[in-house]
Amino acid sequence: MINDQSYMKLALDLAENTEGQTSPNPVVGAVVVKEGRILGMGAHLKAGTEHAEVHALAMAGDEAAGADIYVTLEPCSHYGKTPPCADTIINKGIKRAVIATSDPNPQVAGKGIQKLKEAGVEVVLEVEKERADWLNRKFFHFMKAKTPYVTLKSATSLDGKTATVTGESQWITEKEAREDVHYSRHTHDAILAGVETVKKDNPSLTTRLPSGGAHPIRVILDTNLRTPLQAKMLHDGLAPVWIICGSDNDEQKVKQYKSLGAEVIKMSHSSISLQEMLNVLGERNIQSLYVEGGATVAGSFVKERAFQEVIMYMAPKLIGGKDAPTAVGGTGIANINEAIALDIISVEKAGDDLKITARPKEAF
Amino acid sequence: MINDQSYMKLALDLAENTEGQTSPNPVVGAVVVKEGRILGMGAHLKAGTEHAEVHALAMAGDEAAGADIYVTLEPCSHYGKTPPCADTIINKGIKRAVIATSDPNPQVAGKGIQKLKEAGVEVVLEVEKERADWLNRKFFHFMKAKTPYVTLKSATSLDGKTATVTGESQWITEKEAREDVHYSRHTHDAILAGVETVKKDNPSLTTRLPSGGAHPIRVILDTNLRTPLQAKMLHDGLAPVWIICGSDNDEQKVKQYKSLGAEVIKMSHSSISLQEMLNVLGERNIQSLYVEGGATVAGSFVKERAFQEVIMYMAPKLIGGKDAPTAVGGTGIANINEAIALDIISVEKAGDDLKITARPKEAF
Repeated sequence: MINDQSYMKLALDLAENTEGQTSPNPVVGAVVVKEGRILGMGAHLKAGTEHAEVHALAMAGDEAAGADIYVTLEPCSHYGKTPPCADTIINKGIKRAVIATSDPNPQVAGKGIQKLKEAGVEVVLEVEKERADWLNRKFFHFMKAKTPYVTLKSATSLDGKTATVTGESQWITEKEAREDVHYSRHTHDAILAGVETVKKDNPSLTTRLPSGGAHPIRVILDTNLRTPLQAKMLHDGLAPVWIICGSDNDEQKVKQYKSLGAEVIKMSHSSISLQEMLNVLGERNIQSLYVEGGATVAGSFVKERAFQEVIMYMAPKLIGGKDAPTAVGGTGIANINEAIALDIISVEKAGDDLKITARPKEAF
Repeated sequence: MINDQSYMKLALDLAENTEGQTSPNPVVGAVVVKEGRILGMGAHLKAGTEHAEVHALAMAGDEAAGADIYVTLEPCSHYGKTPPCADTIINKGIKRAVIATSDPNPQVAGKGIQKLKEAGVEVVLEVEKERADWLNRKFFHFMKAKTPYVTLKSATSLDGKTATVTGESQWITEKEAREDVHYSRHTHDAILAGVETVKKDNPSLTTRLPSGGAHPIRVILDTNLRTPLQAKMLHDGLAPVWIICGSDNDEQKVKQYKSLGAEVIKMSHSSISLQEMLNVLGERNIQSLYVEGGATVAGSFVKERAFQEVIMYMAPKLIGGKDAPTAVGGTGIANINEAIALDIISVEKAGDDLKITARPKEAF
């Protein structure tokens, strides 16, 4: 079938494949079509370079005149690092623009659409909108909240254990699920772990996909600066390390980490407020944060309702044990009606494991 | 489409709808077809009454001569409470018999098929065999093992908790999942809970479906006879109560339960061996056991590898808390490679909740 939906799905596929390489820009795909023939396809590939529409229109060349363009996100109307795409679309003589979703930034939303309409371009909106919104959910959240989109990740057995009673946890899930985790690292600006996880597992928290991938900035929640100076990630030089700590740590200690190349970011109180930390990360343009960091850390994010997405990998295994650790620790809630209600977005197979993606029923 | 598969699917549908009402017999469906027209349909409805083939052939009447019959289970070849179905099929002049799966009893397997073949009936085997085997999995297991088919059931939040840190657990899942639990009670001969659950929740463990349903025999695991004498199920008279206890309990105590109508079954040792208990239930013709009974009980069944199926209802909720209870307690395992590997059979929605059905990768 070829129709508005099929062309938009192609544009979304183009966008989806660039996840992780466009930050701080959103992913965007575009397709130019005339009389049922595709004339141009493009995606935004990297911040500071051409937008998707420009690539697709360049491929179409002079044939673009009188054609339709499918774009996954409202074309920009302002001069940034590149000229406004709305102008380019108009100048190329595009007759009809099909747009999946509008700009999330309330200050510019609708302006690109308006410009196109004023120039006589027919505009069709909200084709495949849901998928387009989901695809740029991190970017959209950040534009509105100015704090990173937080994804909580856990890997458990079917009976909810992250390790055996003795603490053995490698490996609960299989290769495919673990690769999927690396893909998530690739698509988030930063990754967060608690100091206990750093001490226990000495992880590198880098992206290790067969085809490479972008390393996230590594954020350690470490109230009292207990991160071991020999921790792997302080020495591998693969991505920045930011240590978030309380206000009471002495400068001598701070200097030790700085001399290893890490940044130490002191909060305003002796204990860490997640909200303050998220504000600080937002100010530093971290749009998305992947929280991989242990039950206590997950418990804090859940308790403070500081997350937008949950990814639960579930291995078809039973571990058992009253004292075996679980995904979300901390103090928890007392009454069942305080439980955080989620919407299940998808249940997929990752190899033999299950991958369950959910988000809060009501955004926080 | 009408073909061998479609007719067998109908026969399986007929059988499936009688789940819970044929014990100790299997569920069986049959369809009689000639020249693309269905002449008769039937299912075995109750132990001691006509088999599926007899009902379907009766409906077909004289038209059955020269027809095909679809049966979900190999027709019997021996005189039981009813005459052998293989003979009836032959006498009615059936030309071709399509059979989903053969008799699980090694002593009679193949004999019905042989009888049909010897009488000149064309026999086609293993059409929709997988579904037919799954449908009668409890009966088949019992025929081979002589102990009940054990189904472990739990209901947890997405993060694996069965209650909050304060123990509040009602209700984690919604109405649809809870109704599905009642359907499972209907389709098992017996239900088992630990004495702790009986003390804490005072459950009735009956089947409460909008349309009624069969109550399972209620089995309480109670080593030291601590079941409260005022427990609801000792007084409601809705289904038998069997209390399994260790050998060291005094007869005075035993009599108290007996006077309330319960049976008290002493094991041969002071502590309960699950295997001995399953043997005893098997001797009493309990073909299937639904284990609903608390984390410690589930932990024992898992540890002793004494189960054939796991049903996990998972609510789209986060509860959190290091000390919140989980589905499978007990001492657990030390090393991750001792975890029990499962095959996921299905992941379904039950209302907004997930229902995950799994079985051990390798049968115990």
